[in-house]
Amino acid sequence: MALRVGVVGGGQLARMMIAPAVELGVELRVLAEAEGMAASAAATAVGDYRDAETVVAFARDVDVLTFDHEHVPQEVLAALVDAGIPVRPGPGPLRFAQDKLAMRARLAELGMPQPDWAAVAGADDLGAFLAAHGGRAVVKTPRGGYDGKGVRVVRDPDDAADWFEAAQGAPLLVEELVDFSRELAQQVARRPSGQMRAYPVVETVQRDGVCAEVIAPAPHGGDRLSAVAASIGTAIAEGLDVTGMLAVEMFETTDERLLVNELAMRPHNSGHWSQEGAVTSQFEQHLRAVLDLPLGTAEPVAPWTVMVNILGGPEVGDIDGRFAGVMSEHPSAKIHTYGKASRPGRKVGHVNVSGFDLDDVAYEARAAASHFD
Amino acid sequence: MALRVGVVGGGQLARMMIAPAVELGVELRVLAEAEGMAASAAATAVGDYRDAETVVAFARDVDVLTFDHEHVPQEVLAALVDAGIPVRPGPGPLRFAQDKLAMRARLAELGMPQPDWAAVAGADDLGAFLAAHGGRAVVKTPRGGYDGKGVRVVRDPDDAADWFEAAQGAPLLVEELVDFSRELAQQVARRPSGQMRAYPVVETVQRDGVCAEVIAPAPHGGDRLSAVAASIGTAIAEGLDVTGMLAVEMFETTDERLLVNELAMRPHNSGHWSQEGAVTSQFEQHLRAVLDLPLGTAEPVAPWTVMVNILGGPEVGDIDGRFAGVMSEHPSAKIHTYGKASRPGRKVGHVNVSGFDLDDVAYEARAAASHFD
Repeated sequence: MALRVGVVGGGQLARMMIAPAVELGVELRVLAEAEGMAASAAATAVGDYRDAETVVAFARDVDVLTFDHEHVPQEVLAALVDAGIPVRPGPGPLRFAQDKLAMRARLAELGMPQPDWAAVAGADDLGAFLAAHGGRAVVKTPRGGYDGKGVRVVRDPDDAADWFEAAQGAPLLVEELVDFSRELAQQVARRPSGQMRAYPVVETVQRDGVCAEVIAPAPHGGDRLSAVAASIGTAIAEGLDVTGMLAVEMFETTDERLLVNELAMRPHNSGHWSQEGAVTSQFEQHLRAVLDLPLGTAEPVAPWTVMVNILGGPEVGDIDGRFAGVMSEHPSAKIHTYGKASRPGRKVGHVNVSGFDLDDVAYEARAAASHFD
Repeated sequence: MALRVGVVGGGQLARMMIAPAVELGVELRVLAEAEGMAASAAATAVGDYRDAETVVAFARDVDVLTFDHEHVPQEVLAALVDAGIPVRPGPGPLRFAQDKLAMRARLAELGMPQPDWAAVAGADDLGAFLAAHGGRAVVKTPRGGYDGKGVRVVRDPDDAADWFEAAQGAPLLVEELVDFSRELAQQVARRPSGQMRAYPVVETVQRDGVCAEVIAPAPHGGDRLSAVAASIGTAIAEGLDVTGMLAVEMFETTDERLLVNELAMRPHNSGHWSQEGAVTSQFEQHLRAVLDLPLGTAEPVAPWTVMVNILGGPEVGDIDGRFAGVMSEHPSAKIHTYGKASRPGRKVGHVNVSGFDLDDVAYEARAAASHFD
């Protein structure tokens, strides 16, 4: 009898669970938002993830329910738990992924290194924070932001006036604008029974607030960086009771500290390199973790892997011809497509290249992805 | 618009095409023999592959048709070609995979090294062949054999009397019993446009006529063995006009010659190591080849990969518990299951392990697979 995993959300993260599910003999069932989404090959239902009845009906005969995104409302999560359906990650940890103020408060309790932050209810609070932080800060809406949306750099208390008005008295999150030398990400897998596996810390390169490229492992890091990043990742996974994959996005400051930026409780773009670059990909690992099966080795299979996102892709033109071009000129590039219609800036796929020389690997990955520019 | 590949046959080879098809954005459609087969996740039709009308109807709206096995009758292949459906490999090369006498004759024309052989119509012919070959030989039914079926070692002209009777005057194939030190296999991918990629030659270990284990690359081979094996593989792919994956099973004789034993024109058990062990797995490569897309690198990603088949599996007992045991004790083992009911001797899955030390890699792979004994 095959184990059954239900996934809420039919995006590319659900899609990329299909391959390891087939190999492991896990039956994947996807509740997609609409027909024809990225994970349509495994979509067994289409429905609204905000509707408790829909989600509970979908989840009735799966062994565990997990997610392609963190947007399922707490009321729906509560209904699932009430119905006796194992939900991983659970409502408790998901609250910290859904609400950035709750996350900051919890990370502070755990003593995790993070940027200075505050909950601000209006221009006066924001003004005080700006005054104390050199006149610059980052304001974030606590809920609903992703890929740079819901994030704004401010220099004046009035710069967030529209957001304060929209929030109707609910506080916003303000954070110091960190003087960082680069951004890193740490993936950790955790099972309900407590076993964890930390992946090598990676460097992420963002463009316009969107992940453009990942280098695994992070160059120039050394054992100290790896150890500190892994200890932050495992402390958060444990402290927030995360099950499945956790991604911790971090700043490396110019004075070499690591500060936690964002969390994702699911496979994450910063872990796509692991599909070919690690013994156990984050997608296989997520399935194993949510099923409470023993975790696989998170070691890299090559000294370097570089992942480059395909953003936007061609709006018009012969996509098949472009694929053939990549395949012809970059026979070692691993192409992953999401089956999505192309739109400028939209993530429609990515390319992984692994090898021994970082310059060569990065060149190949960037050149392969550039066919889609 | 996604490219569509139709696969005739719903076994594990079709199943293992699903993962690369999803990542490449290829829509896979499978004509399965029955409900609930290994490739059921991609099965869009169930029907008899021996019925031309069924197969042509299935293939109507795919870009190319390929196969999980070589048993589709020539009449059905001809009907597909008549209907204008691209069939890869085509009826021409498939005849050589379906008829071992035709294969021996064609390989002789191509000057390929092979065991001495003859077409024998009865006991007299067989007696003459035995007399010329030390009194021992192997008789094969030209059609329908696999995994050791349809193959018999004979020492007396009457040892094949029942097969001659069943053949009703059609000849059988007789081959010399080769004094070999080991068995090898060479995989080659070939596109309709002629591009080819040769994989490293591998060593295959057979037990009871069934592949038990594969070591990639073949140990103690060196450059000469690789070059000779690759040149045999590419000469056959070209000479027989094979498109897609070709596996050439060979004997290495005690005097270090290579002799061609069997051919398979599809992904093959001897190439399963490539799923994690090569940059481009044979399943991805087969899809690229039959779609006439540029081929991927066939280089290994690690010095050694060992594949061990899971044969029979547990007839009774807790399969999930066994999986958890493998995962717990062998976190670097890659498990591939075929979603098949277990039956003694039946291939129900396999395990791949890659690494730097052959002894360690082989130990891990065998120990992981042994959980299912």
